[in-house]
Amino acid sequence: MILDKGYVHGGDIYSRPVRLDFSANVNPFGAPEAVKAAVRAAAEDLCAYPDPYCTLLREKLAAVNGIEPDHVICGNGAAELIYTFVAALRPKQALLPVPSFADYEGALLGAGCPPALYPLSRENGFLLTEDILSAIGPQTDLLLLCSPNNPTGRSVPRELLLNILDRCRSTGTWLFLDECFYELTDRDKAFSLTPYLREGDRVFLLRAFTKAYGMAGLRLGYGLCRNRELLMTMSRLVQPWNVSTPAQAAGVAALSCPHWPDTARALFQTEKPFLTENLSALGFSVLPGDANFLFFSGRPGLFDALWARGVLIRDCANYRGLQPGDCRIAVRTRRENEDLLHAIREVWDV
Amino acid sequence: MILDKGYVHGGDIYSRPVRLDFSANVNPFGAPEAVKAAVRAAAEDLCAYPDPYCTLLREKLAAVNGIEPDHVICGNGAAELIYTFVAALRPKQALLPVPSFADYEGALLGAGCPPALYPLSRENGFLLTEDILSAIGPQTDLLLLCSPNNPTGRSVPRELLLNILDRCRSTGTWLFLDECFYELTDRDKAFSLTPYLREGDRVFLLRAFTKAYGMAGLRLGYGLCRNRELLMTMSRLVQPWNVSTPAQAAGVAALSCPHWPDTARALFQTEKPFLTENLSALGFSVLPGDANFLFFSGRPGLFDALWARGVLIRDCANYRGLQPGDCRIAVRTRRENEDLLHAIREVWDV
Repeated sequence: MILDKGYVHGGDIYSRPVRLDFSANVNPFGAPEAVKAAVRAAAEDLCAYPDPYCTLLREKLAAVNGIEPDHVICGNGAAELIYTFVAALRPKQALLPVPSFADYEGALLGAGCPPALYPLSRENGFLLTEDILSAIGPQTDLLLLCSPNNPTGRSVPRELLLNILDRCRSTGTWLFLDECFYELTDRDKAFSLTPYLREGDRVFLLRAFTKAYGMAGLRLGYGLCRNRELLMTMSRLVQPWNVSTPAQAAGVAALSCPHWPDTARALFQTEKPFLTENLSALGFSVLPGDANFLFFSGRPGLFDALWARGVLIRDCANYRGLQPGDCRIAVRTRRENEDLLHAIREVWDV
Repeated sequence: MILDKGYVHGGDIYSRPVRLDFSANVNPFGAPEAVKAAVRAAAEDLCAYPDPYCTLLREKLAAVNGIEPDHVICGNGAAELIYTFVAALRPKQALLPVPSFADYEGALLGAGCPPALYPLSRENGFLLTEDILSAIGPQTDLLLLCSPNNPTGRSVPRELLLNILDRCRSTGTWLFLDECFYELTDRDKAFSLTPYLREGDRVFLLRAFTKAYGMAGLRLGYGLCRNRELLMTMSRLVQPWNVSTPAQAAGVAALSCPHWPDTARALFQTEKPFLTENLSALGFSVLPGDANFLFFSGRPGLFDALWARGVLIRDCANYRGLQPGDCRIAVRTRRENEDLLHAIREVWDV
């Protein structure tokens, strides 16, 4: 939890009444009924401690991902695993392309390792390029990547990602790859490194139920990693019962609905062009986004104007490498997207 | 979560079928209906991220405990706060009376600080005595205490606790006091340091909903501490959303049932003497316990014999300073206690 006023994320619907929340990148259809039912059922027996091994959930995740249960670690949301991974690795030199999700740097700072920042270029649409390869050296203990990247929505191109993997292997660099948006990514861009993991590899893949299964309130994430030593160190740094019984049950229930993210992805095929077109017509510069959110830029002031009307978008001015006027919105249903555009037209003089 | 086979706690009802669980020290009446209802209601909207400030819960906790909301920190179970506190403090020298809850040492080892162990004497019923005062010196960065202590059930005597507080203040030692069993402790022994906290104090009090409100599966604990700097450091070491929406709602609901633990405490007034008398008649040596569990000793073998019959108690042989034959049981309802005694008589030749 947070104690100061330094909250830098979207999704804060508690500080002020929010009529329309476009700031959190979650499945617009929420959680499947099976997940809700699992939580309601768990409510009837809250007394027992959770399974500290997450046995059933890890077995199911292993089967889905074609990996051994021993190579799956679960967490109290993917965010917890970022902090635990960094605390377990204690890198001396970490390389972090920016802009990206703020908690990578937060976790590194907490572990006493201010990262070397690798600026992504606005001119190039914040796309990661081959140049990153020469920035990875034997002194680089850790490279953190997010694909599709938050908040820009850009994926690391497939060939480049495989080249990065090779480069990290040759320099002994750990690769932490955040794949949390994998299930909500356009199929032609979706690419996971799971099949490329090797025994003992210095590669950690981060996944979440949060986004794809609309479970952000419940907290459930997991990591895929075939480096048993690292996973053991991580597990010793957290309490035995960090994944609650309702979250474990909800995860198992979510895996019984493997097509739940498909409906959302189908929606994005029409809604991303719809939003892009309309925002462009209003004078905003919109990036092509591979996942369930869009990044766009314009002159500053939109966030405040919308918030005053109970519409929450993600102001990206506080991201490393971004500036006032940079914004991110979730892609939601047509009715909600029209509501948002209506609100923008009300507050925005083109 | 745990990845190796080194689980050392009670409450593991997942590895083998358990008919009767006496290994977890939770309220025998479980969670109040208001708590279950809050979790069911939260199941309907899992999509939004939890309030990272735990605003409403901290306000209520502050009011109940007569403290400012800014001096309350919430965690994903009390266990998380142990790890976060130790990671934030990074003590060089920590003093830990043993036997005690294993995760104090686990958290210290994770932070690279093997504690100085202060052995409690079996002959003295594992009661903490004045001798501890001379073990606290200016070199002692941290003293960890649990009162009533887990697994012995013994409280630190009131006068001694106040002397320890004075001693810690004069040596600049942090006092971490685990008060997780406070609500389930006999009223004549229940004693919290909350009213003694001073602004800027190096004192951290750990509290939980787990035990008193039967919410172990949901994970919710909190800390009371008037040292804002320490709390800020702790909050920077964890993700923003570590306390789930159902847990926050359940905590608020639990606080609307302040008399829930009373019923359990009333039960313990008859059941602790009942269990003590019967276990003594079977040849076990039973310690007087101030909270909702009892510690007893006999010749080794009881745990395995009971587990083979689906009855789970807490084998305490793996606690620092304890030995095979040392056991802990929760105090439960008369029917369950009779079931347990019946099972013991079946497997145990007096």
